[in-house]
Amino acid sequence: MPSIEDLTQRVREFADERDWHQFHTPKNLAMALAGEVGELLAELQWLTPEQSSAVMADPEVGPRVRAEIGDVMIYLTRLADVLEIDLVQAATAKLDVSAVRYPPHAARGSAAKAPHDHPPVS
Amino acid sequence: MPSIEDLTQRVREFADERDWHQFHTPKNLAMALAGEVGELLAELQWLTPEQSSAVMADPEVGPRVRAEIGDVMIYLTRLADVLEIDLVQAATAKLDVSAVRYPPHAARGSAAKAPHDHPPVS
Amino acid sequence: MPSIEDLTQRVREFADERDWHQFHTPKNLAMALAGEVGELLAELQWLTPEQSSAVMADPEVGPRVRAEIGDVMIYLTRLADVLEIDLVQAATAKLDVSAVRYPPHAARGSAAKAPHDHPPVS
Amino acid sequence: MPSIEDLTQRVREFADERDWHQFHTPKNLAMALAGEVGELLAELQWLTPEQSSAVMADPEVGPRVRAEIGDVMIYLTRLADVLEIDLVQAATAKLDVSAVRYPPHAARGSAAKAPHDHPPVS
Repeated sequence: MPSIEDLTQRVREFADERDWHQFHTPKNLAMALAGEVGELLAELQWLTPEQSSAVMADPEVGPRVRAEIGDVMIYLTRLADVLEIDLVQAATAKLDVSAVRYPPHAARGSAAKAPHDHPPVS
Repeated sequence: MPSIEDLTQRVREFADERDWHQFHTPKNLAMALAGEVGELLAELQWLTPEQSSAVMADPEVGPRVRAEIGDVMIYLTRLADVLEIDLVQAATAKLDVSAVRYPPHAARGSAAKAPHDHPPVS
Repeated sequence: MPSIEDLTQRVREFADERDWHQFHTPKNLAMALAGEVGELLAELQWLTPEQSSAVMADPEVGPRVRAEIGDVMIYLTRLADVLEIDLVQAATAKLDVSAVRYPPHAARGSAAKAPHDHPPVS
Repeated sequence: MPSIEDLTQRVREFADERDWHQFHTPKNLAMALAGEVGELLAELQWLTPEQSSAVMADPEVGPRVRAEIGDVMIYLTRLADVLEIDLVQAATAKLDVSAVRYPPHAARGSAAKAPHDHPPVS
């Protein structure tokens, strides 16, 4: 079972072997990440929220969603490697901030009332 | 040192405690992921590629980039959890496909010639 | 009532007066466009489809959505100006292609069955 | 020469003829807009800023960029129509705000010094 460190290493070697370091600036990688997220959105855009919850059971769309998520993770891993950021640590640090900003009691179900001001999770 | 499984668990509890499961459909989470990637792009948009490579050394922008990367990872982790996708496995599976599609020898530096047809890494 | 040509001219002068031409490469402007679209998504991400249809009646969110749409239009107009593309002509040309690809009779309501293969409109 | 009002009307009829109104909620259309912007980013992601400035002269990539810009404009027009927002007016109103926020003299070339705090144009 590969770890996130294994993945980081493999993506780095993948780029090395193809001489792609030259293209992998943070600016370019952020654009590539956004492009892959765009492809993910395209898979979900016409679905109802309920249909989106069942999407992995669709024999055609499910594997495509999984592949797009894989692409997003590849570019996010590569971007973090180039910036020397630990993905799990950066996410954990941000959760610590959000835990203070959105106390559990006060925030219960609050995205319904103010979806813009209280973005769930982060 | 938290693992990616620890992060998944923590984000899930974070949503549970705030009763935010109701908002966390794959459709909504994909939009939130795209919104966070948009904030990351905004940090890098006016930088030259060279400036973007040195961005973490900037005492003001560096921490903001790290925080945005954290936000992106939080939503990607949450989305994968809701879809029951293993992020590292999905990325590894996609790399296996790309390794065949872009053989190292043929693809060396080729993004320069055909950046659209040969998207580096995935 | 300003026309789209008036808007293009005004955005160009706006950039000229601030000496911002140097930042307005197509690459940078496309990133800025994506950043603004990300802010628009953030306004709509936790809404149900039905709530999103009524969003302009919300005294708080409505004006924000309108402002984000304005931002998106500003950057799209600027990008098209820099690339010397006529926005209305480019959209019309693409519609001509889509009209052939998705004949009205065959495509009726078909996004429900195959949302990925039949992206409505374009 | 079609106007932006002609385009709005044509896109509306296009959706009507295919019974696609049901899919065209603001939420879904914002996702589709983001998906098309993602495709535009993908065309520019590995280019240097200089290469991006010359992209329309490329016989292969130029027409693709034009087609992507057309797609972005189609969905932006459709979204504005559904929300009953006038695109040119919304952009003009936002420029009025930005003109006060970034006075020409103070903002001259300032994106270089603080690209994050002084987002050019909007």
